[in-house]
Amino acid sequence: MEKKSLLIVCDGLGDRLVDGVTPLEVADTPNMDSMAKEGICGLMDTVLMGVRPGSDTAHMSLFGINPFRYYTGRGPFEAAGAGLKLEEGDVAFRCNFASIKNGKITDRRAGRVEEGLEELADEIKKIKIKGVEVLFKRGTGHRAVLVFRGNDLSPNVSDTDPEEEDSGYNKSRPLDESMEARKTAELLNEFTEKAVKQLTGHEVNRMREEKNKLPANIVLARGAGMKAHIPSFMEKYGLSAACISATTLIKGVCLEAGMDLIEVDGATGHVDSDIGAKATAAIKALDVYDFVFLHLKGTDEASHDGNFKSKKEMIERIDVEVIGPILREIGDATVALTADHSTPVGIKQHSADPVPIAILGDVRTDDVERFTERDCAKGGLNRIRGLYLVHILLDISNRIKLFGA
Amino acid sequence: MEKKSLLIVCDGLGDRLVDGVTPLEVADTPNMDSMAKEGICGLMDTVLMGVRPGSDTAHMSLFGINPFRYYTGRGPFEAAGAGLKLEEGDVAFRCNFASIKNGKITDRRAGRVEEGLEELADEIKKIKIKGVEVLFKRGTGHRAVLVFRGNDLSPNVSDTDPEEEDSGYNKSRPLDESMEARKTAELLNEFTEKAVKQLTGHEVNRMREEKNKLPANIVLARGAGMKAHIPSFMEKYGLSAACISATTLIKGVCLEAGMDLIEVDGATGHVDSDIGAKATAAIKALDVYDFVFLHLKGTDEASHDGNFKSKKEMIERIDVEVIGPILREIGDATVALTADHSTPVGIKQHSADPVPIAILGDVRTDDVERFTERDCAKGGLNRIRGLYLVHILLDISNRIKLFGA
Repeated sequence: MEKKSLLIVCDGLGDRLVDGVTPLEVADTPNMDSMAKEGICGLMDTVLMGVRPGSDTAHMSLFGINPFRYYTGRGPFEAAGAGLKLEEGDVAFRCNFASIKNGKITDRRAGRVEEGLEELADEIKKIKIKGVEVLFKRGTGHRAVLVFRGNDLSPNVSDTDPEEEDSGYNKSRPLDESMEARKTAELLNEFTEKAVKQLTGHEVNRMREEKNKLPANIVLARGAGMKAHIPSFMEKYGLSAACISATTLIKGVCLEAGMDLIEVDGATGHVDSDIGAKATAAIKALDVYDFVFLHLKGTDEASHDGNFKSKKEMIERIDVEVIGPILREIGDATVALTADHSTPVGIKQHSADPVPIAILGDVRTDDVERFTERDCAKGGLNRIRGLYLVHILLDISNRIKLFGA
Repeated sequence: MEKKSLLIVCDGLGDRLVDGVTPLEVADTPNMDSMAKEGICGLMDTVLMGVRPGSDTAHMSLFGINPFRYYTGRGPFEAAGAGLKLEEGDVAFRCNFASIKNGKITDRRAGRVEEGLEELADEIKKIKIKGVEVLFKRGTGHRAVLVFRGNDLSPNVSDTDPEEEDSGYNKSRPLDESMEARKTAELLNEFTEKAVKQLTGHEVNRMREEKNKLPANIVLARGAGMKAHIPSFMEKYGLSAACISATTLIKGVCLEAGMDLIEVDGATGHVDSDIGAKATAAIKALDVYDFVFLHLKGTDEASHDGNFKSKKEMIERIDVEVIGPILREIGDATVALTADHSTPVGIKQHSADPVPIAILGDVRTDDVERFTERDCAKGGLNRIRGLYLVHILLDISNRIKLFGA
């Protein structure tokens, strides 16, 4: 009677109307539509009605972790995703290697040139600051993570990353009046100055410039967050859970939620990803785990580019390469197909428009015949909240205990 | 890409069935229906499912201010609406000039005779009570506002207004065991006695009685509330907002929510109001403000009178004189049409029946073709909560920040 559950999230899948239709509406999606037909459909506000979710807060919600309670910033998730094991009380920042000239940021990603960044990261790791332990780890590309470990720290500090070019970098400021926020902002400013000193004129940068490439001579930080105790999937539900994602931030959220990571060769997190291999890995993971989460990023990438055609094509690829095989192999597991948020191609950013959802399993099938935003709006689930999704899936899978007697 | 937002609230618009139909269903409303057709529709619980909203708590919710957290009583809103500037910690009461004879209230509104009330209000203003500053301001008609300013006050006290005639007035009692509530109840009782003494035999009242008019010889208080810090529209959303309403209480809520008031000649708050002038003012206000709120009271007045026909006619007037011009002039602004609560003509009071809502803008159009309670129930919004409405509108208008990263 107890069943396994598979949650498939197509990042940024939901959309608004462009010339009267959404990408999901024009895409050819026989497999998704069969889920809609044989399952129960609805709309979902992943965080809350009218709230534009970030990728981190959306996934927290989808895993039953209330972001209004637990979210302080993306830093800790980036750190976890990059493989830096945090301790409670640590403050973590998402960082970029960037280029600065005459006090102005000339490129926020150091031209996306990776050459020598590993060596420069080793240089940064040497930075010592009184009263705090400094941890630093390079992620993929120009990305990195900075962690302060010590007493009396606060995530309530502003970014040094100006989020635009042709301006200077920002001094971090405390965002409340606490001693801890003041201290943490000062630490970040000291770190930033020392990083500039360490990187400027470094041999790696001399070589980059000789080759007419931008130097990576500053580290910009943003998204300060504090590691908190988030109850794990096992603690909350008594279940084992696994995650398949190629996105550092999402992997970090999954790790913090107590999931195991399953790495898949060829999974890139871009539209070129080998999503078929991810689907195969997800099906296999269900042999071992009670709950499997499969994350597909390409739809969001196409949305941020404002590319309707590419989004439609990515949806069609997911339909054939992911949903098709899963429906053939899934047996009696409960399967949900949805998104973490809408990213309308018309605005190229996340929106609060609710996302479509279809659940296949021991459900009350409705009349919905297509997996689209507007068809699902007429579904039997009506409009649900993301925070309750895991509970709903585990209920359908008969994996959840009674509240009361 | 960023758009303006207009929220149109027809007070008490929602209804139940009378002989199988609602006033909205039988009214001829081509413009409202065109909003339903071209927009997205749904039902809305302004405060919470099953909660009968007051005008104050409903509008707080509609502006994103949680009444369960911030509402203590209507007093502070009446005071703000009447132009009394409150300070935090003030306790305010909505008051009536009334008539008392041999210890019994003979008319709760002193016969609605305004003659000399201004002079009597000046008399009341002279009242001194030890330990507290007493502020008093006459509103429209028989209405007035009383404010206690000082330390250790509480809104948790009962009304002196018995809300019925032929009984004595009530002694105010503390509604909890705090010293503050006891003190405030005593202050209110002392005020009431001094007011009776001041007004009884006053020359104004002698003249009123000579003319066979009821004396205004007591001030009845109700709706104690404490001025609290409500985050303004600008603080919460970074937006400028304006309100067009002829109702003191609603103006008060808008002021407390940080909106500017726009006064319109001929706006009365009754069925005779020049609602066309209000629509014109709303359209004009959108040139200046990011968010405009337009309040129309007539529908609620007809509902409280239990007058189906008058409600239907008011709806038709709104359709022609307000919605028509707005649809012609609005450009690409996001427009929402809804109500603050249902006031079914059959029960002549507010009910918790959800209200219909239609939103025009960058939305996922649905199949709804008429703006009625039952048609909107089939709309693409499903059922939303009033507290999130501003967020939803600002999301559609692309005016809201990401929560997370």
